[in-house]
This record gives sequence, C-alpha cells and structure tokens, in this order.
Amino acid sequence: GCCTSSSQSSRLLFRQLFEKESSTYTYLLADVAHPDKPALLVDPVDKTVDRDLSLVKDLGLKLIYAINTHCHADHVTGTGLIKGKVPGVKSIISKASNSKADLLVEHGDKIYFGDLFLEVRATPGHTLGCVTYVTGDGPDQPHPRMAFTGDALLVRGCGRTDFQGGSSSQLYDSVHSQIFTLPGDTLVYPAHDYKGHTVSTVREEKLYNPRLTKDEDTFKNIMENLNLSYPKMMDIAVPANMVCGLQEPIGKAA
Amino acid sequence: GCCTSSSQSSRLLFRQLFEKESSTYTYLLADVAHPDKPALLVDPVDKTVDRDLSLVKDLGLKLIYAINTHCHADHVTGTGLIKGKVPGVKSIISKASNSKADLLVEHGDKIYFGDLFLEVRATPGHTLGCVTYVTGDGPDQPHPRMAFTGDALLVRGCGRTDFQGGSSSQLYDSVHSQIFTLPGDTLVYPAHDYKGHTVSTVREEKLYNPRLTKDEDTFKNIMENLNLSYPKMMDIAVPANMVCGLQEPIGKAA
Ligand SMILES: [Fe+2]
Ligand SMILES: [Fe+2]
Repeated sequence: GCCTSSSQSSRLLFRQLFEKESSTYTYLLADVAHPDKPALLVDPVDKTVDRDLSLVKDLGLKLIYAINTHCHADHVTGTGLIKGKVPGVKSIISKASNSKADLLVEHGDKIYFGDLFLEVRATPGHTLGCVTYVTGDGPDQPHPRMAFTGDALLVRGCGRTDFQGGSSSQLYDSVHSQIFTLPGDTLVYPAHDYKGHTVSTVREEKLYNPRLTKDEDTFKNIMENLNLSYPKMMDIAVPANMVCGLQEPIGKAA
Repeated sequence: GCCTSSSQSSRLLFRQLFEKESSTYTYLLADVAHPDKPALLVDPVDKTVDRDLSLVKDLGLKLIYAINTHCHADHVTGTGLIKGKVPGVKSIISKASNSKADLLVEHGDKIYFGDLFLEVRATPGHTLGCVTYVTGDGPDQPHPRMAFTGDALLVRGCGRTDFQGGSSSQLYDSVHSQIFTLPGDTLVYPAHDYKGHTVSTVREEKLYNPRLTKDEDTFKNIMENLNLSYPKMMDIAVPANMVCGLQEPIGKAA
C-alpha cells in the first residue's frame, strides 16, 4: 500500500514501548518465524527493563541483543541491567560513540536476528556516534522498511546539536544522505516524542519537518538559536551510558 | 503471519497518538485508497486536537467522524472542538452512553469510512455505554483485525467498575463474549496505558491478563477491592463529555 503506517512481514513481531519521564521509545523486534524467536531491544531504558523483559517472556522470545542508537544524555540505558538479568544478551552501540559494549558497530554493518536484520547507517550530528538502524531491504524483510532514527530525526523535529560532539551541518548531511534517501513509505521510529506522535514516514518528514525541509544555512541558524537548557540528567546519564548504564550514579560514587 | 503486531491493508492508514496527562490513546484511521481519503478519530482529547488536526491535514485526509468509545471520566473529549474547527465532522458515541452526539450507535452497527468500516460491539461494565470498535471482517479489511477497546480491556488490565453504571460481572461477560471471541491475532488498542505499552493482542490478553484470566468470582473480588480514589477530572469531564466536550467546565459556569 502506498501510505499505510504499519509494517508487515510474516516473520516480524514488533512492539513500540514508551517511558514517560524521558519520553523515550523502546522498540522490540523479533523473528517469530525462526524456531528460537530471536529478539532485540532498541534503546531500552533502565526504569522500564522489568516491563520489557516481562513482555519478552510473555511472547516467548529469546532476547539476544540490547542496542542503543547513541550515548543518551536524558536517561540511563537499560542494557547493563538487561545483561545482568538475561545471561547471554549482548549489548551493541556504535564504535564512534566511544562507549563500551559487547559489540561495536560501524556504518554498513548488519545486525542479524534470525533471518531478519538491521542495517547500520552512520547519522552523526546530534552526537558524534549516532547511528540509525534500518530494517533490511529484500523480499523476506519487513515492508515498508522501518528506520530507528534515535535523536537524528524526530517526528517534525530533530535532536539538538550543541553538545556531545554535535554539529548542525553534520546532522543536516546525515538526515539528507542517510534517511531521506530511503523509500518514502519507510516508517520513522524516533527515540523520543514529546507531543505523543508514535511514528512518521520519510515522505512526511521530507515534506513537513519544520527544520530539515529548510536549506542548510537556515537549518544551522535554527539549531544555533534553540536556547535549550542543560539536560538535567546529562551528568549522570552520559558517563553511565558510556559503560552500558552500569556506572554508579555520580551522587552515589565515592 | 501468526504473530505480527501490526495490521496491513493497502487501504488503511493508521496512527496511534498519545496524550500524556491522562495517558490517553487517540487513533486515526483512514481509507487512503478512496479518492476522498475519509478518516476518523477514535477518542480524541481536547488538549491535543490541534496536533491531531495538523496530522490529518499533512496526510491529506478528510476527517468525517470523531468517535468515542464511552463517556470518559478522566479527560474532556476533543469531539466538540473538532466539530467547531472542521465543519461537517460528525460525532459518534453509543446510544447507551446517554450522551449527545450527531450519531448514536448500537451493537451490530457498522461505521463506514470509504470502503473500510468499524463494527460496533457493546462492551458495558466499565460504564453502561462502553463499546468496542472492531475493524471489519473480510478480504478488503485490515488483517489482523484491530479492536479499539476503550476502557473495557486494557493491556494486562481493565477499566474500573465502581461508578458510571459500572458492573464487574457485566465487564467480565463483555470481555469474554465480545473481545476474547475475536481471532487471537486481533490487535488490542486500548484508550489508556499507564506503563507505556502501545498494543496487545487477544491471544496475549487471554493468556496473561492478570484480571480477566481469572474465574468470574475472583475477578469480581479483585474489582471490588481496588480501593481507587475518586478521579480528579470526573466532575468536569463527565458532564462535558455528555455533550461532546462543549459544556463549560463547572468552575467557570454561573
Ligand atoms: Fe540523545
Ligand atoms: Fe473511562
């Protein structure tokens, strides 16, 4: 269909989950046609790990990966807790994030779960190590494709570019070259939404994103004048997330 | 597919939207294969009407109905505001709700938008007038089916039964006879979720709903001992919702 807002594959089980305090979306994907029902979580949050693992259990899935789109500044990742609770799960983040994880991925890598896979696309600009995970291209992969864009591209917005190695010109290039080149019906699943949107499409953002539809100079100007406050979780979340969320919060450390 | 968590039809455009304060889900459905792209909103909230109408506009849809699953006690419906902003939109609620609306529906009615339709199923128990809207059964209708259950069935929960003509024994019967009889892969889209779940399936709730998997006596006992506080919005929301959300809030009246 030209415009449907859901993706279908006989293999894919997909769930979107929300963490209210940081307005973060966590995504569960599994290949349910594979005998093991291998599954992965994208951007799990520490506070909702029990909810996520309970769902994994109810659905009879085998969690194999806990993945981050980037080193988050607004919440502590659930990857460390998950690894403690489910032996064998491997954490994944980009090499460019300079964070620790079991597997460090780079642009062009494929992350297989059963016969499905996510393709890694480098989309720096919000942070130096931001990546977008895109479902595979092919007859056995979900159609339309799904892009987990982290904070690179949000519904009618994008992540800030004023810290963590951010760069507005890099973000502009990342979104235009790596996300807007995907088919128009590709579903855009962001790491956050603050207005209650759950999904968008590449076509929609190319037409209606109030920032990224502008020319590069206007975009840079918008990004340099957001006047955002320093994120309140940043000094706790970033150091913790660089080691899979396992570092003691700063207040508790010696 | 046996277990996918999304519904596909070449005709259906579907969006789930969230209102954070009352944790309410609003649903947008449209027949995008029809030249008019007729659309409807299920359970719109007054505070998010502008967001919803902006999305309707971006997607090039023609909104024809604004529908409620029941007379809500926790938020003011957006139907009245929508009717004021988009001439021609008709509000819909069940006849049994004793509320005002342009169209009053009853069990077995079909609500057509283009060549797609929602079937009305009476599911009283949370309130006397609660209905569940279920996408049609047929080759041209979305598969798997989608059930918009309001507060009758929530993900791993259900609505309270201690006011607005609520009845735990009626709710038990409604869910078992009208929702649990749908195909197992039917997607369950509730009016609320407080833990960040976005969707479930009939199969999952039949297996894991902590209340409705119990026998009727145990269920009644659970529901009679919830010790919930009086909803803070109730005295404003219920009178307003009985007239499409258009009544002045009590504090402002006379
Ligand atoms: Fe971020
Ligand atoms: Fe309700």
